[in-house]
Amino acid sequence: MIKTPYLLFLGDAPDQLAAKVAIGIKDWRPENAVAQFRMDGCGADLGIQDMTLAEAKAAGARTLVIGVANRGGIISDAWKSVLKDALAMGYDLASGLHNLLRDEQDLVDTAVANGRKLHDVRVADVQYPIANGKRRSGKRCLTVGTDCSVGKMYTAMAMDAEMRKRGMKSTFRATGQTGILITGGGVPLDAVVADFMAGSVEYLTPDNDVDHWDHIEGQGSLFHVSYSGVTMALVHGGQPDALILGHEPTRLHMRGLPEYQQPSLEELRDMALPLARVSNPGCQVVGISVNTQHLGSDEAITYLAEVEERMGLPTVDPIRIGAGRLVEALETI
Amino acid sequence: MIKTPYLLFLGDAPDQLAAKVAIGIKDWRPENAVAQFRMDGCGADLGIQDMTLAEAKAAGARTLVIGVANRGGIISDAWKSVLKDALAMGYDLASGLHNLLRDEQDLVDTAVANGRKLHDVRVADVQYPIANGKRRSGKRCLTVGTDCSVGKMYTAMAMDAEMRKRGMKSTFRATGQTGILITGGGVPLDAVVADFMAGSVEYLTPDNDVDHWDHIEGQGSLFHVSYSGVTMALVHGGQPDALILGHEPTRLHMRGLPEYQQPSLEELRDMALPLARVSNPGCQVVGISVNTQHLGSDEAITYLAEVEERMGLPTVDPIRIGAGRLVEALETI
Repeated sequence: MIKTPYLLFLGDAPDQLAAKVAIGIKDWRPENAVAQFRMDGCGADLGIQDMTLAEAKAAGARTLVIGVANRGGIISDAWKSVLKDALAMGYDLASGLHNLLRDEQDLVDTAVANGRKLHDVRVADVQYPIANGKRRSGKRCLTVGTDCSVGKMYTAMAMDAEMRKRGMKSTFRATGQTGILITGGGVPLDAVVADFMAGSVEYLTPDNDVDHWDHIEGQGSLFHVSYSGVTMALVHGGQPDALILGHEPTRLHMRGLPEYQQPSLEELRDMALPLARVSNPGCQVVGISVNTQHLGSDEAITYLAEVEERMGLPTVDPIRIGAGRLVEALETI
Repeated sequence: MIKTPYLLFLGDAPDQLAAKVAIGIKDWRPENAVAQFRMDGCGADLGIQDMTLAEAKAAGARTLVIGVANRGGIISDAWKSVLKDALAMGYDLASGLHNLLRDEQDLVDTAVANGRKLHDVRVADVQYPIANGKRRSGKRCLTVGTDCSVGKMYTAMAMDAEMRKRGMKSTFRATGQTGILITGGGVPLDAVVADFMAGSVEYLTPDNDVDHWDHIEGQGSLFHVSYSGVTMALVHGGQPDALILGHEPTRLHMRGLPEYQQPSLEELRDMALPLARVSNPGCQVVGISVNTQHLGSDEAITYLAEVEERMGLPTVDPIRIGAGRLVEALETI
């Protein structure tokens, strides 16, 4: 687990897009975001207070999170100087960068000298077990998508937030680097060795109270040939009681695969449900989450209504409309 | 690639079962098995010539293959002495042991000093690409099973052998350690990092002559919750034109999962075919391979006939009966 709360390091991010991870943290766990740290030339702004390392430390921050992509895959000397100061001041560091903190000898030396931790969230540090398939107590919800990057993480985050707002027992379970940095823990599933994928998902979603819901962050798609094995491990390791179907209606083809068309929601349902029932015979498809960000407001409402009518399932955009009806659908099972 | 042919090291294997890998090499690639090397107390015998290191070297052996499980996961001093002599004499070493040759400093030093290679076939040494899903030329056949360990590798090996006997273009593509040692190359799929699984299968089965068949070694089962993600990567990365359904009819439950029943062959067909058609819309289920080793001879013949009648597909035990009818089924597509 990464110690919270955080000081969010934006470095010299050229624009808002480069700060995607930090924005996710600020949006979904504002209580984790003590302040932002920006360097000269930074083009991103989270709209929260700027603090120095010392100020944020005094305000309670325990980890400096690199919430930004770096340029050219290099941790620059300018960054290094801030990161080393932070370690010396008692911060741990956490990063989702492709190039790892642990591969920078000066950072390792400074961390060791100060008794601090370096968290590279793209790396699987735990020796996960082989999945045993045993039924676990508590309930689990998984979003499966017609494609990658259709809003599965946001759906799970929104459902978790809505449940907690209603006083229900709920946990978001991160399976990717952004989710892990947002919540402070999880499994970097795409970095886990094949034999242990399903076991890592079991490990992530252990026995729990019978009225507790895990909202498991989805990955890939059963229809995306590059990553479908990862999705399969979530479907079987996650043992979901409920599936949400995720969709982005404006895609012209599967992400990164110009030769592949998205499946219909019906095809997704008919593929995912029998697979999920292998590990949980009671699994049901309870709702549909549509990412309507590329539709106009009227267009979005019309589209959601059409899908709801056609599929006979509550259909929302959890960001635009809210996740309430998906949460209510869970209460029926 | 591991240099062939081999001297098969049986060490002090307590019994025939411990020499499973070496037996596989001798059965499927007798031309790769120059001789066996047995130490005092060895309880295994491949029924081929015993040779010293020097004799086998003179007979053309280029790699000493550790074709045996070791006791307690330790590479003993007695073994070490033989292995080091082999390296000094110009052999490469290849091993499927859990504990790795590369973790033994004295073996590494000896290999370096003599310019030899240590092959640990459980380890994925290649940086595989992310799968791109592009259609490749040539044809591919994959066996998918109702369970793990139902004879998928033997089915693929038998079909490949039968095709080559008939003068057809065919390659067995190994995805597990035994298959890799038998043939000298392949992808240790269960050791590949999640994101690269499907890409490693694409890498393993590249473009080929239009009348060439790859027989891809299957892994796991779509119905085995521990390993289904690995199977999925084979189904999508392998882009099979033909599926064979593999089954072992005497299993009481899924291997290692007492709470899980095997699916029927119909359930397997109905799950696997739509998944395979995502990456290859022309894919067909062409035949059934039953492992009848635990049935009597009459019982086996009755069972095969029953399944063939029920499923409407050529149904054989490729070891007991031969793979000819499965090969003929491929010729129809």
